[in-house]
Parts: sequence; C-alpha cells; structure tokens
Amino acid sequence: MPHAESSLVPAEIETKSQFWSHVYDQLEPLLDGQRNWVSNLANTSALIYNALLAFPAHFGTETDKAVNWCGFYIESSHFPKSTDLNSENKQLLLGPFCGKPACQFINVTPNKARGVCAAAYMDAKTKLVPDVEVYPGHIACDGETKSEIVCPLVSGHQVLGVLDLDCLALAGFDEEDQKGLEKIAELVVKACDW
Amino acid sequence: MPHAESSLVPAEIETKSQFWSHVYDQLEPLLDGQRNWVSNLANTSALIYNALLAFPAHFGTETDKAVNWCGFYIESSHFPKSTDLNSENKQLLLGPFCGKPACQFINVTPNKARGVCAAAYMDAKTKLVPDVEVYPGHIACDGETKSEIVCPLVSGHQVLGVLDLDCLALAGFDEEDQKGLEKIAELVVKACDW
Repeated sequence: MPHAESSLVPAEIETKSQFWSHVYDQLEPLLDGQRNWVSNLANTSALIYNALLAFPAHFGTETDKAVNWCGFYIESSHFPKSTDLNSENKQLLLGPFCGKPACQFINVTPNKARGVCAAAYMDAKTKLVPDVEVYPGHIACDGETKSEIVCPLVSGHQVLGVLDLDCLALAGFDEEDQKGLEKIAELVVKACDW
Repeated sequence: MPHAESSLVPAEIETKSQFWSHVYDQLEPLLDGQRNWVSNLANTSALIYNALLAFPAHFGTETDKAVNWCGFYIESSHFPKSTDLNSENKQLLLGPFCGKPACQFINVTPNKARGVCAAAYMDAKTKLVPDVEVYPGHIACDGETKSEIVCPLVSGHQVLGVLDLDCLALAGFDEEDQKGLEKIAELVVKACDW
C-alpha cells in the first residue's frame, strides 16, 4: 500500500475513540523498521494531520473546525549539533510538523518559560486549552488558532519534547483526543532512539 | 508578525517568477538565528507548501492542480544516530515535509538506486518529471501524484539530500519553478550546519 493511504479514514469511523484507535493502528506499520526520530516524527505528524482533515465528523477541512497545525517540539540536545545552540537557556526546538510555518524554539528555562508547550513539557502532563486567548503567556505562532492540546513525550523520568495540535474551533479537543494522542505519544517514544 | 503569515501570498502576485521571489524573501527571516537543519527544513517545507496552496494562479487547492507533497530527503549521516542504520546501503532518509505520509528512505547505493529523488541526488542535478508514470523506476509514495520536481541540496562537492515536490497535475512544474526552487535550495544549504 502506498504510504499516503495510511491517512485515509474509512466512512464507518464515527466516534473520536474509533478514530484514534484507527490512527494508532495505521501508525505502527508506518514507524516499523526505522528508529531515527526525525523521519518517524515527520510521518507521525503527517498521518495525524491528514487523518484529522479526512474526519469531517469532528474536524475535517472546514475553516471553522479544522486542525491547522500538528507537530513536535523536541528538547535541543536530541538534535544534530549546530553552532548556534544557546547553552544558557534550555530550549525545545521546532521538529517535523504539518501546518503553516511556526516558531523556531520554545524557552523551557525555569522562570523564563511561557506558553502551552512549555507548560506541558515542564509539568510532564497534557494541557488541554479550550481557548488560547485566555491562556496566560500564550505564544501565537498563528493568530487563527483558537484551541490547543499539547502532550508531553515521556521516556521514564525524562521528557523528550511535546506533540502539539492547534484547532480553528474553540474547545476543538476533548478528553477522547487526549486519550488518543497520549497513546500515540507513547508509541512514538518507544519507536525511536533518543 | 506571527510566523504562519509568512506563507500568505499577496493578490498582486501573478507570475511564477514573482511567486518564487516572494517565497524566497519570506524564507530568509524564517531561517534567521537558527542553524539546525531539522527546524529549518520543517519551516521551509511548510512555507513552500502553504504558499503554493495560496497561489491559485498556478497551483492552489483544487484537486486537479495542487501540490500534494513538499519536503526533504537527507543523506543518513546527517541524522541523529539511530541503531537501525543499514551501513551496507547508502540511503536518503525522510526529513521534514508537508503532505501525506511518505516512504521512510530512498536507496542511493550505486546500481541499487531508483526513482526521481535518487537520480537528482546521484547526478547532483534537478529532475523535472512531467509524468511520473512513464519515469523508469518511479517510486509511488502516493498514487495520486502525476508530476514531480526534485532539486539536489549541494554544498561544494557534497550532495546533502534533495528537495522534492509532487503535483496532482501532469506537467505541474516548469523551468520557472526549477529556477525558484534551486535558489531556495541554495539558501537552505547555507542557512544550516551540516
């Protein structure tokens, strides 16, 4: 099967719970045989993003309810070495994603951190934000985003980064999405070398 | 300006030449201050892909002429180390992209290589393919793709990888696209540490 077809969503899938279970099942073979995180996170964000666009019951392509960004921010030490890494501040750097261009990094230095991604990373807990406008310290990479969910990628006691999704609807995500995305985050962590 | 706005295309842009010059100008600030290739290629593919979707004069969102994939395959030695790297075969691995899930790797071992990306990498020359169906050894990650353009990323005598775009139209890309993408490939190579 061509890889692109993994992001199709069969018509019989109606509930979010069915949807996330389907996406999980499609993701496993997509990660198989490859352990570098760059390739695997690229395919993971593409699968989730395109499957959400193909799921009109809850998200789809309509501009009042679509997911407009899906991707990863990863702690800088996991990246290929580069000369500009600012060692004074602890940072998450932009990883693979689908959606419009985004902020290059997120500061996660204690007392300097702000925004939803930093909070999920530092607390090692998923953040479900129904209205980003009222979230203290929200960082707007895209002014059209209305709600957000951020799941940490956790390996033992270490937080590796976060999986971040933005939606054009207020309260676009709920506890079913959280459950589904946390299982996917767990699968991705195990499928890669860090 | 929020980063997402860099992929908007002003209405006065009508020709491909104006379009690529605009995208180039938007890309420079987007790469500024960051030298790791993962983050920079993620923003580059997002900028190109979303700008093409916002350029109905030649591409846009219509399913008979849209660009359906835009991203990078990079030679495996540039990736963070992982345990599964097959040292017998020289490979390009999937880098950041926008579009549906894609092939994890491309074999670029002499006599084993096939497909448009491998050819562009091995010849260090752009490949403009008006009809992928008749390209010998074409690898179909997405059966909907009709045409393709692949530009090598060249640094001195070294080829680092390729920038690959797929289109739903036959002959979707022409020499103007080639010129624009080759300039962007050059900018991206210089903006990152390899």
